[in-house]
Amino acid sequence: MADPVSSRAAAVAADAADPLAFARARFALPPDVVYLDGNSLGALPANVPAAVADAVERQWGRDLISSWNSNGWWQLPAHVGDRIGALVGAAPGQVICGDSTSVQLFQALTALARIGTGRRTIITDGANFPTDQYLAESVARILGLRLVRVAPPDLAGVLDADTAVVSFSAVDYRTGERWDAPAITAAVHDAGALMLWDLCHVAGALPFDLDGLAADAAVGCTYKYLNGGPGSPAWLYLPTRLQPSADLPLTGWHGHADPFALEQQYVPATGIARGRIGTPALLSMLALDAALDVWDGVDLAAVRAKSLALSDLVIGYADANLAAFGVEVVTRREHERRGSQAALRMPHAYEVTQALVARGVVGDFRAPDLLRLGLAPLYLSFADVWTAMETLRDVLATEAYRDPAFARGMDATVT
Amino acid sequence: MADPVSSRAAAVAADAADPLAFARARFALPPDVVYLDGNSLGALPANVPAAVADAVERQWGRDLISSWNSNGWWQLPAHVGDRIGALVGAAPGQVICGDSTSVQLFQALTALARIGTGRRTIITDGANFPTDQYLAESVARILGLRLVRVAPPDLAGVLDADTAVVSFSAVDYRTGERWDAPAITAAVHDAGALMLWDLCHVAGALPFDLDGLAADAAVGCTYKYLNGGPGSPAWLYLPTRLQPSADLPLTGWHGHADPFALEQQYVPATGIARGRIGTPALLSMLALDAALDVWDGVDLAAVRAKSLALSDLVIGYADANLAAFGVEVVTRREHERRGSQAALRMPHAYEVTQALVARGVVGDFRAPDLLRLGLAPLYLSFADVWTAMETLRDVLATEAYRDPAFARGMDATVT
Repeated sequence: MADPVSSRAAAVAADAADPLAFARARFALPPDVVYLDGNSLGALPANVPAAVADAVERQWGRDLISSWNSNGWWQLPAHVGDRIGALVGAAPGQVICGDSTSVQLFQALTALARIGTGRRTIITDGANFPTDQYLAESVARILGLRLVRVAPPDLAGVLDADTAVVSFSAVDYRTGERWDAPAITAAVHDAGALMLWDLCHVAGALPFDLDGLAADAAVGCTYKYLNGGPGSPAWLYLPTRLQPSADLPLTGWHGHADPFALEQQYVPATGIARGRIGTPALLSMLALDAALDVWDGVDLAAVRAKSLALSDLVIGYADANLAAFGVEVVTRREHERRGSQAALRMPHAYEVTQALVARGVVGDFRAPDLLRLGLAPLYLSFADVWTAMETLRDVLATEAYRDPAFARGMDATVT
Repeated sequence: MADPVSSRAAAVAADAADPLAFARARFALPPDVVYLDGNSLGALPANVPAAVADAVERQWGRDLISSWNSNGWWQLPAHVGDRIGALVGAAPGQVICGDSTSVQLFQALTALARIGTGRRTIITDGANFPTDQYLAESVARILGLRLVRVAPPDLAGVLDADTAVVSFSAVDYRTGERWDAPAITAAVHDAGALMLWDLCHVAGALPFDLDGLAADAAVGCTYKYLNGGPGSPAWLYLPTRLQPSADLPLTGWHGHADPFALEQQYVPATGIARGRIGTPALLSMLALDAALDVWDGVDLAAVRAKSLALSDLVIGYADANLAAFGVEVVTRREHERRGSQAALRMPHAYEVTQALVARGVVGDFRAPDLLRLGLAPLYLSFADVWTAMETLRDVLATEAYRDPAFARGMDATVT
């Protein structure tokens, strides 16, 4: 492993040697901005505007209703699902695209809990992203189960013969800590329970091996590292072995075995098609489909290597230059415990985040005291991240964050 | 009421006198097509392409994450909800936009059933659109209730002290028959039960008075007569009086009382905001928001009057010219029993539909024997509909539908 980038010259050299440097041209980034919020809303791929214009003007406007067949609308959720599956280690036919992560969590948790043989406990992470906790709470309640919150990876003493499902995010949304998914999945399976992974902060950020782990279900969004656009549809993974028994609660007509027979009784489709619900948001899904083109020819191992080198840069810079300002590196120092973001704890984190945005360095704030820097290897250069860190040092050194313009007001930065 | 249009000259005269004629220029329709499938997928409003390009290139591409505040993304579901509410008789603050009709049915049915005081029956229409039946089945099962299918409006002998919720579509999706919503709602309320209306075939097609009826919930799509685009997000109406007790099952974090506090426990927002679920499909919702501009200055009473005149034309033409070919008018002859589509039963209905499409007259087929003609008064002229009927007569008279090219194959025409 190379030494961390520790000077602007080294950053420039790293960019010159970057095997992913070609990918930046696949994005339309605003000038004079270092965008470190791709873990919240990914940047716009350069091919998407034309694809969306085609979807609106030709597919909708001219071809109208015939597009369901002639432009492949009907097949799109499975087609896009397979493309996402390829990025998270799922063989074709196991991922369906649609709806929001929250809706897919309800689907997956209910289906897994219904498989259970009398087991009555759902386990989630008490630091999991709120929607994961809220949907687990709702599913537990509607099915008459018990919800237990624990911190991964410590499941010893919690997993038992009553555990139906364990639902964790593979990377913590605040700290960026990455859990040991193989070990956790194995422990859950050893206890006879089922494992659901939320891959919102994984898909497009680092490799994952859903099939290899024998995960029982997974969900994820597509608007972070997959750059699908604001609110682009989420996805649900159900492995082939569980599909025949997957008893999903949102029995929309698109998931019916014979949707156009328009029957009275619901009979689920075979295969992953049973994960379809209602008519999908096609403009959003067509934007996502185009956005996935940025992955053509991209090696996920190279993405991971660059992501780690970028977080090494952040950590090294913070240790060397920011500790004096009270900045603490929250991101784990072990590579295997890191996702693709850096989290820095500091006084006045909210105001510092705003001062950075005003200088064109866009990260985000997570209460109470974290600055979160998303590291999207496809469009960020080492020089970008170096610039961001120098800007952060300047904001701290000059106390620019004390400007009243950066004081906390109404904010709605969305994970 | 004027006599039905019964000649091309009369159609041209009706167009010259049409107070809604101005609205056609608000749509980008393909040339040489008479589009009678707006009850499945509405036509493209002319202002939408530029609005979507702005959403993609400026809001997403340039403003990125800041758009949640600066471009009003966070407020959009309530803003669009209010705009839809104005078209279905709902005062502001009672409609939220998002997700699919299927998902909203699950929300509404569960919330209404949970209000029930020990009542254990859900009633739906056995001829209701399948997704309405499937979700009612799922909700009944997950809550341990009983589902009964009856045909509206005959609820006598079915409504009783065990009825928790009645869920009907206000207009039948196949026949276009319109039910007497005030009478049905009153009967349901008299029995102490709650009334859910599905307005998929109502919103944008005819006036409705949700508040006036004291309906307990309503749902609808936006891609039919509201022209929101393929799979544009659906909506949920919950009246102000029921919002505090509405216990919704899809507890996504956008519906939390304080979403950015990122708390462990779900506490629903006050007001209609509790109907939010996860991150909405913003590109689709922004397209819808722009599409709703076509209603500016449009009088819904004029929409209704023109719709009825158009279906009068279809019925009159069919009676006079198509009965000899075995065509039967399924659409109700009483104005008050009609929605905004005409349904004609005929032999070879599938093949006839295809032959019409090949001649630029786009309607759709509903098994086993219906040709369905959607009548969208904002962009259809009387001359258009006259042309469609003449084309239909020609297809029947020449038996053009016998061309093997029109034989039934794989089809996926979507309601």
